[in-house]
Amino acid sequence: MRLFCFCISVGVLAACALTRADDDAFRLRVTDTKSNLNLPEFLVKGSTVTPDCPCEWSIRKITLRGGKQAGSELIIVDNGKTTITLIPTRGMGLLSVVAGDLTLGWESPVKEIVHPKFINLQTRGGLGWLEGFNEWMCRCGLENNGQAGEDKFINNVGDEATMQLTLHGKIANIPASRVEIVVDRKSPYTIRVHGRVDEKMFYGPKLELLTELATQPDASTFRISDVVTNKGAQPQEFEMLYHANYGRGLLEAGATLVVPAKQVTPFNANAARDVDTFDTYRGPTLGYIEQVYALRLYGDKQDRTTVLLQNKKQDRGVSMSWSLKQLPYLTQWKNTAAVQDGYVTGLEPGTNFPYNRSVERKFGRVPKLAAGASYAMAVDFGLHVGEGAVKSVQARIKAIQSGRKTTVDQEPQKTED
Amino acid sequence: MRLFCFCISVGVLAACALTRADDDAFRLRVTDTKSNLNLPEFLVKGSTVTPDCPCEWSIRKITLRGGKQAGSELIIVDNGKTTITLIPTRGMGLLSVVAGDLTLGWESPVKEIVHPKFINLQTRGGLGWLEGFNEWMCRCGLENNGQAGEDKFINNVGDEATMQLTLHGKIANIPASRVEIVVDRKSPYTIRVHGRVDEKMFYGPKLELLTELATQPDASTFRISDVVTNKGAQPQEFEMLYHANYGRGLLEAGATLVVPAKQVTPFNANAARDVDTFDTYRGPTLGYIEQVYALRLYGDKQDRTTVLLQNKKQDRGVSMSWSLKQLPYLTQWKNTAAVQDGYVTGLEPGTNFPYNRSVERKFGRVPKLAAGASYAMAVDFGLHVGEGAVKSVQARIKAIQSGRKTTVDQEPQKTED
Amino acid sequence: MRLFCFCISVGVLAACALTRADDDAFRLRVTDTKSNLNLPEFLVKGSTVTPDCPCEWSIRKITLRGGKQAGSELIIVDNGKTTITLIPTRGMGLLSVVAGDLTLGWESPVKEIVHPKFINLQTRGGLGWLEGFNEWMCRCGLENNGQAGEDKFINNVGDEATMQLTLHGKIANIPASRVEIVVDRKSPYTIRVHGRVDEKMFYGPKLELLTELATQPDASTFRISDVVTNKGAQPQEFEMLYHANYGRGLLEAGATLVVPAKQVTPFNANAARDVDTFDTYRGPTLGYIEQVYALRLYGDKQDRTTVLLQNKKQDRGVSMSWSLKQLPYLTQWKNTAAVQDGYVTGLEPGTNFPYNRSVERKFGRVPKLAAGASYAMAVDFGLHVGEGAVKSVQARIKAIQSGRKTTVDQEPQKTED
Repeated sequence: MRLFCFCISVGVLAACALTRADDDAFRLRVTDTKSNLNLPEFLVKGSTVTPDCPCEWSIRKITLRGGKQAGSELIIVDNGKTTITLIPTRGMGLLSVVAGDLTLGWESPVKEIVHPKFINLQTRGGLGWLEGFNEWMCRCGLENNGQAGEDKFINNVGDEATMQLTLHGKIANIPASRVEIVVDRKSPYTIRVHGRVDEKMFYGPKLELLTELATQPDASTFRISDVVTNKGAQPQEFEMLYHANYGRGLLEAGATLVVPAKQVTPFNANAARDVDTFDTYRGPTLGYIEQVYALRLYGDKQDRTTVLLQNKKQDRGVSMSWSLKQLPYLTQWKNTAAVQDGYVTGLEPGTNFPYNRSVERKFGRVPKLAAGASYAMAVDFGLHVGEGAVKSVQARIKAIQSGRKTTVDQEPQKTED
Repeated sequence: MRLFCFCISVGVLAACALTRADDDAFRLRVTDTKSNLNLPEFLVKGSTVTPDCPCEWSIRKITLRGGKQAGSELIIVDNGKTTITLIPTRGMGLLSVVAGDLTLGWESPVKEIVHPKFINLQTRGGLGWLEGFNEWMCRCGLENNGQAGEDKFINNVGDEATMQLTLHGKIANIPASRVEIVVDRKSPYTIRVHGRVDEKMFYGPKLELLTELATQPDASTFRISDVVTNKGAQPQEFEMLYHANYGRGLLEAGATLVVPAKQVTPFNANAARDVDTFDTYRGPTLGYIEQVYALRLYGDKQDRTTVLLQNKKQDRGVSMSWSLKQLPYLTQWKNTAAVQDGYVTGLEPGTNFPYNRSVERKFGRVPKLAAGASYAMAVDFGLHVGEGAVKSVQARIKAIQSGRKTTVDQEPQKTED
Repeated sequence: MRLFCFCISVGVLAACALTRADDDAFRLRVTDTKSNLNLPEFLVKGSTVTPDCPCEWSIRKITLRGGKQAGSELIIVDNGKTTITLIPTRGMGLLSVVAGDLTLGWESPVKEIVHPKFINLQTRGGLGWLEGFNEWMCRCGLENNGQAGEDKFINNVGDEATMQLTLHGKIANIPASRVEIVVDRKSPYTIRVHGRVDEKMFYGPKLELLTELATQPDASTFRISDVVTNKGAQPQEFEMLYHANYGRGLLEAGATLVVPAKQVTPFNANAARDVDTFDTYRGPTLGYIEQVYALRLYGDKQDRTTVLLQNKKQDRGVSMSWSLKQLPYLTQWKNTAAVQDGYVTGLEPGTNFPYNRSVERKFGRVPKLAAGASYAMAVDFGLHVGEGAVKSVQARIKAIQSGRKTTVDQEPQKTED
């Protein structure tokens, strides 16, 4: 019953998910498999498209060569202040965001933008995803977004069968089937990159992901908006996790997560040991074993929430804001390992926690879409430089918390019977 | 013993498998890995090659871009009346056949012509093939052509080992190594597309598939002829299934299969429920679970047989004719699910039924080729528009049946001991 | 403890692994993913680069088209006497070496240079590597280089987990990320092809392989030098095996392996049957099951050793020389099967024997690299034509053996408890 209601509400949300472009907006189709179109390279300049805009911006595309990156495509949006690099080839993931000397991203041991043709998600017991993982923001999903391992599914003869889910799902290793640039010609000259990624198969999920990156000239903020649609004729589960990753530059010994937490639960015994300091980070630590926390957050009256990752001096930070109606759960992944091994933390709003889907289903955290139904999600990002800018976000989060209590669980959630 | 005889007879059949081109025929090598040749695009026009032919025909090739179709190649044969699209990149499969408003093909939830580099046959417990399945006619084989699951093989140290067979085998996801266009310059100006697909490995099958599509200008018929050869030095099993799929346009509520059936056996309990109406189809039915029937057919004096799929009004149909010596078994796959989930029926002549190879081997239905031996198979297709045309095929099939009895089994064949 | 010492000594060896080019050497960067560079084709001529060199040499690159070789790249070094073909796309493997009518290489049933995008190492119970295997010299490694099957590893949450190792590891199916040609402009005009292949992942090995092929104009000798470096922050196991394969031309009934053997141990019971004739070869033999021998060799005072494969008449041979400090173990793979099935022998110096890594670890044969440490290996190859040339190598090997005793084990090493 609850799930059915879920499906209904979803249609409403979807309508307002993507930004609405002006009718006379500049449009450039970059990729469209239906009309057999793909532009390997281009450069669009603000001076041509929006001559009245005082800030020069540009969008260009390049195709990578050599090694495991051969054939991977990048779209680089420079809004005049902030440079955002997207990877259509890897499910419209975002490689990095750079504004001045502040970078969103991290140093993975994987250096190339690995083309999905070189990825076998099933290797290493379902951990093959890790051979390509180096994005700043990587979507996890859509059939599943969590841990590798066995789950049930209904096979072609209608029987319940078992399959091995692979870590974090497929979507980050599916190339986009449609990509379009849309820029308003009037102030505030909104710049958008739209993508469509299909996770569809016969006798399986028929999920379509529409993505949008939207920013404006000279801005240090941007929004990621997505709509997932079930194109099949039967109800379909899905999961989405925004795996946003931060390394050196923001992350350091004494960096902290500011978060309006209602409840903090360690993922496992190793995380439980340090649950009381979940919101502070260590410097690079040789042999550090990941610690993951399941966070339930407070929202404002519209159920919107904000989190902030800030450096030790609290003069640099990144904020993420979203609706808890869309993404009720936040996963915090602490991996403050040695730099060469990947010094990084992930802040991951999701439709669920990234336990194996069988666990999430048991706890009622796997949304289901009716035939034709859609589910919209959006996350706003802000880059904050200077004590004042950071303080201002701290204050917003404090206002959301509004003195309400945080429960810190000392034990992980029991996932087995 | 029986298998050995099989091998002998095979050599004889092979000789007459492919059509014989004129000595001075027009030849265009499209792909040849040996000479490092591949033409990404071309257009051949009948007016140039066969200026005396009254009917204009053409053959062109395109290479697809974007999404999961990036790099897939299509060869489009337009004989002036019928347009046949081949996919060299997917084992010389046939995407569709269009003649006027009659189309052979179906609407799969998979829309792109997926390049094999994006396919992992082992996903979903061996069902990865379903991520690319949208062809009108897709060959299944060659090492195995049936259900996924465990079977035995002899490994490199000579021991019996187990492997997980994947659904419908590999051949539809192996790109052709040699492709050639051959057109006779004299009437009837036969147009041919030849392909060679290698399913070869060290310590494994060394099977070579030669394919031919043959048609003639202005025809609404065409033939698919194949020869499978064991290039290894030791006897080698193989399996072949012609997975021809039909959707809306022909398939509809009340569409029927006309077939000179000797015996009809349901594949499983779900199919058994409706075995008495195996030859009639429903309209799109939400939640329909596939029903599969194993058919043994009668042939004429030369052991040739014909089947017909016709629409409800019986004024449109497609016929398939072949030798029961080559392809003794017909599998009928009914999947009259909702349109979005894939409304389709497969008519699949084969060397065997598509049970797991271990089952087929037990029932003696897996042919074995001696070293160097070949096995030839051909299927003739006809598109029939108008009541008269359809009636004429019905009559041919009735003549083959010749009043002989059809046994309809109420229970599936027992596949386990 | 022993392993730690191992790590230390490794750093010293690495320093002298690759040849030192002149400061003003000719350099051509062929591939560099960091600067997004890849030259699909080129031709470098000795007459231009080294005008004073009396012997004309050339290096060219081509990109293959069609079938499963689509996108594979070859670099062909012709030193004026010997032509050496490298495959950057397949981990810098070497396809063949041709000098006059003497060829190093073999006839695999796999004819194309298979691009890794068509390889799934996990098929057939971990034997997918065999679908691309046709190189003269193919590196096996780096995480593991031996038999497929289960082994332990530490997963992302710090737990011991199991993974299925795949036959001979990944490195031969990883495209090079950096390739450079370096040629000295002064006598002896050393010609080098450098490559870098990364076997790196998050939560897994971070191993970097630097390769060098070095030869000189008009030479019938060449050297392969490699350095493996652990780029991670924690100790990392690795394994390397030089899988050099020889077929008809050298291999024939009566061909022999001349080897300064200290101990010869059959790999399994099938090999044990013929252990007393391990050093002689049969002609192509239908149904021959591979026989593998683990060889421990004597070295000279510098611990260098040499082996020779010679034809029956002992007037043609190939020699391989290396340091037993670097590569203490030699595996001899006899596969004198029918020509169509792959008539071949492999002579495979390695850091270990190619048992499953779990076996090798148990016997202390898996080296471990400290963070940042490197391990250098080099093998010198010589082509010998004429009785005198072959005799001279025989004499060198005899001098190494120096009358010392060879132990021939009648039973395989026990690999299980």
